[in-house]
Amino acid sequence: MPAFDVSDPALVRHAHQPLTEQLAARFAQRIRARLLAPGTRLPSVRDCARQQGVSPATVVVAYDLLQAQGLVEARRQRGFFVRDTPLGGGRTVAPQATPNPSIAQATLASGTAFNATALIRGMFHDPAGRLQPGAGTLPPEWLETAFLSAALRKVAAAAQLSQASLRYGEPMGDSGLRRALAHRLTGMHLPVAPEHIITTLGATQALDIVSRTLLKAGDAVMVEEPGWSVEFARLTALGMRVLPVPRRVDGPDLAVMARYCEEHAPKLFVSVSVFHNPTGCCLSPAAAHRVLQLAHRFGFHVVEDDTYGHIAPEHATRLSVLDGLQRSIYVSGFAKILAPDWRVGFLAAPPALVERLLDTKLLSTLTTPSLLERAMALCMEQGHLRRHAERIKTRLDAARARSVRLAQAAGCAFVTEPAGLFGWVDVGVDSEALALRMLDLGYLLAPGTLFHATRQPSTLMRINFATTQDAAFWDTFGPVRDAVAHGRSGV
Amino acid sequence: MPAFDVSDPALVRHAHQPLTEQLAARFAQRIRARLLAPGTRLPSVRDCARQQGVSPATVVVAYDLLQAQGLVEARRQRGFFVRDTPLGGGRTVAPQATPNPSIAQATLASGTAFNATALIRGMFHDPAGRLQPGAGTLPPEWLETAFLSAALRKVAAAAQLSQASLRYGEPMGDSGLRRALAHRLTGMHLPVAPEHIITTLGATQALDIVSRTLLKAGDAVMVEEPGWSVEFARLTALGMRVLPVPRRVDGPDLAVMARYCEEHAPKLFVSVSVFHNPTGCCLSPAAAHRVLQLAHRFGFHVVEDDTYGHIAPEHATRLSVLDGLQRSIYVSGFAKILAPDWRVGFLAAPPALVERLLDTKLLSTLTTPSLLERAMALCMEQGHLRRHAERIKTRLDAARARSVRLAQAAGCAFVTEPAGLFGWVDVGVDSEALALRMLDLGYLLAPGTLFHATRQPSTLMRINFATTQDAAFWDTFGPVRDAVAHGRSGV
Repeated sequence: MPAFDVSDPALVRHAHQPLTEQLAARFAQRIRARLLAPGTRLPSVRDCARQQGVSPATVVVAYDLLQAQGLVEARRQRGFFVRDTPLGGGRTVAPQATPNPSIAQATLASGTAFNATALIRGMFHDPAGRLQPGAGTLPPEWLETAFLSAALRKVAAAAQLSQASLRYGEPMGDSGLRRALAHRLTGMHLPVAPEHIITTLGATQALDIVSRTLLKAGDAVMVEEPGWSVEFARLTALGMRVLPVPRRVDGPDLAVMARYCEEHAPKLFVSVSVFHNPTGCCLSPAAAHRVLQLAHRFGFHVVEDDTYGHIAPEHATRLSVLDGLQRSIYVSGFAKILAPDWRVGFLAAPPALVERLLDTKLLSTLTTPSLLERAMALCMEQGHLRRHAERIKTRLDAARARSVRLAQAAGCAFVTEPAGLFGWVDVGVDSEALALRMLDLGYLLAPGTLFHATRQPSTLMRINFATTQDAAFWDTFGPVRDAVAHGRSGV
Repeated sequence: MPAFDVSDPALVRHAHQPLTEQLAARFAQRIRARLLAPGTRLPSVRDCARQQGVSPATVVVAYDLLQAQGLVEARRQRGFFVRDTPLGGGRTVAPQATPNPSIAQATLASGTAFNATALIRGMFHDPAGRLQPGAGTLPPEWLETAFLSAALRKVAAAAQLSQASLRYGEPMGDSGLRRALAHRLTGMHLPVAPEHIITTLGATQALDIVSRTLLKAGDAVMVEEPGWSVEFARLTALGMRVLPVPRRVDGPDLAVMARYCEEHAPKLFVSVSVFHNPTGCCLSPAAAHRVLQLAHRFGFHVVEDDTYGHIAPEHATRLSVLDGLQRSIYVSGFAKILAPDWRVGFLAAPPALVERLLDTKLLSTLTTPSLLERAMALCMEQGHLRRHAERIKTRLDAARARSVRLAQAAGCAFVTEPAGLFGWVDVGVDSEALALRMLDLGYLLAPGTLFHATRQPSTLMRINFATTQDAAFWDTFGPVRDAVAHGRSGV
């Protein structure tokens, strides 16, 4: 993937490349890097001309160039849109046979698998020295710890290598880490034995393994909406029918779930109970109880993604805890608290499912690197992780308080009570248009469309509390938002 | 998974547990650990009684206990067999709709996905201090190198952590490793740019990503038979129709491939060109040319698994090199040469496929750990890997010569010319029965059935040249083989 600097300089007249080509190249690069997702509408010719300081004729020629390259398409009276398959040919997500027409509008739009990658690819763009409001993780500076490096040096010692590098590790994952995890989960009132825990390459692989083990193409799966679009995209790519359940403040919409159960016999429900992404909401005990009642009555499994568990209070309600891992699988990792790129994650499963889940892990990656798992185990065993998590929670509380004040001062309304890592705000204008404009100024946002299974305009946006506490961002944001609101392009 | 010691002690009379229960527990443990694959026939009551030094009545009761536990089933006049789904319920691999009955016997038997895990789980059992003839990798002692630990310490330094641990790495993988790989591949006459290489969690994930990107459930895929059964199992688990192409000395059976192309329009051919597993054969240039002609004529892709490339001669024929990565995808890793558990692998793909393959990687694991990729890049850049591979080749040549002499002296016939890491030998008796007997004596073998898509008795066996050069193994092997040949059980 080409390196991409979101803070493009102004277009330069009299350069070796004509202005039209410079402008087309700028859009082409963003489309190829998925920073402009398929289906995104380009700015109107007039707006684009103002924004870029060029004539409307230049924009018309540039858009024609993009169309000739197959990157965008013109829709009558509506403007130019990024094409669904800008990369030419290949698989599009096949529409699923829908036994009941009522599900049709609820299932995924065909382009969504590609849209989701826009956000996750965006996560990897980090223009020098600038915090990104759309980021999904804590800033690297927050994660700097002496113990991480010390643990790594310890497992990297030559004497250790033969065990943790030169031969395959245990298929279930490093036994030290599984013991430490079992201890931690038991402390969270989720008693589980190390032999019912499987390590994975991040929570992402854990969710992937669960889907591949419990589902076959065509099965119906319930997900929360808004929700983590990578999950929608993965399920769609695996050929599943995705049923989006509206996520309310206290949990999923139970009436919708019940209807889905009656009509579509879903096999699985994927849920983030604690500090839900993107709303920051936590599941209530009553809602948890009723979700599990449905699971037992209709025979579906629940996979609980507790990615944000490290920054949650002790008493937070978790489906797996209530259920005692009967019909539920608990998934988590360390990406939000320690070393995102080590990709250490895990799942804890009912004993009867463990062997089948392990088979899927073996078939997809054989083992996972036990060297990094051992280093993580050291961080846990010595209490470093727990103390580090406490420090992060304190720091995040302060950042959240500041970010909330700044966001409100900039005219944003919080849709849900601010909590956890993410805020879910109403910016009062189309957030995708806003995101597009902010990209020109070097900021990556996470507009609401990215958290929905069906593509629809949204005035909502997810912010990362840790990366939006600087006044500089909001000083830029406010005027751009007002300009978008009034159809102006200048700042 | 419970720890499992293949070198069980003799059953003890007058212990706290009756002999019948001890014997049943021993078999139960092996079945649960998949060392006895589903479909395996247990020894006859008479043979088992002799082997274990107990009365036939004890065996009868023990087998009844196993049957009561649902682990084995009795088949009239044929004895006791390990059940297909010993773990109770769950998914069985659904039989595929076969448009042409002629394919029925060629497609996978429904239990094969489980059988394959027997071998890969066996890979992780390493009874103390004993080399295993069925192993798939080089002995850890062979891989001990000072530079590996030095490279690891370098990337583990605190100053490096922020880049390679505390933030997500590049989605494509560490750029240093991709540059080093591009340089190496170009030296192998496969010119490829770093931006057309994607790192993966071992070659296994690379093959998984290719399957998930290019295929959808129900598609037909050609594989080589005998071949690497993990590949058969993964494709079956993904819902593909697996078409086994007989692997000849110089390459796949082209007549069979042509017939499959006419009748089933396969989308993919999975091939190990160099030092094929388990036969050790290499593809001839003429066969490679004709495979690619078929690929162009019938429009399928080729994925070339070059896992053994590090120990191959420079001039070995590779499909990707002839094809110039037009319809082919090159896959390899480091598990056979450096640090199996680091799980560093990669794929090199035609430019038009790179973005789609990258999407699949992101959806399945997000990134891969760049810390280990950086350490691997250091090993390559400084020439350590190349010199290490030369030393390994020399050592393996010597081990092979010795193993071949010992195997032949023990009455084994080589089916193919010994080369590379694995030998493919005819032991003259049912190799599964032999493997079962050798397990009692602490040796894990790799019987021929594990390399076939359809379950059928075989007198063939794969040996690892690096782990069968000790006379001690063959001294045990010979008498056991003779005993199996003559229906005796004593040694």
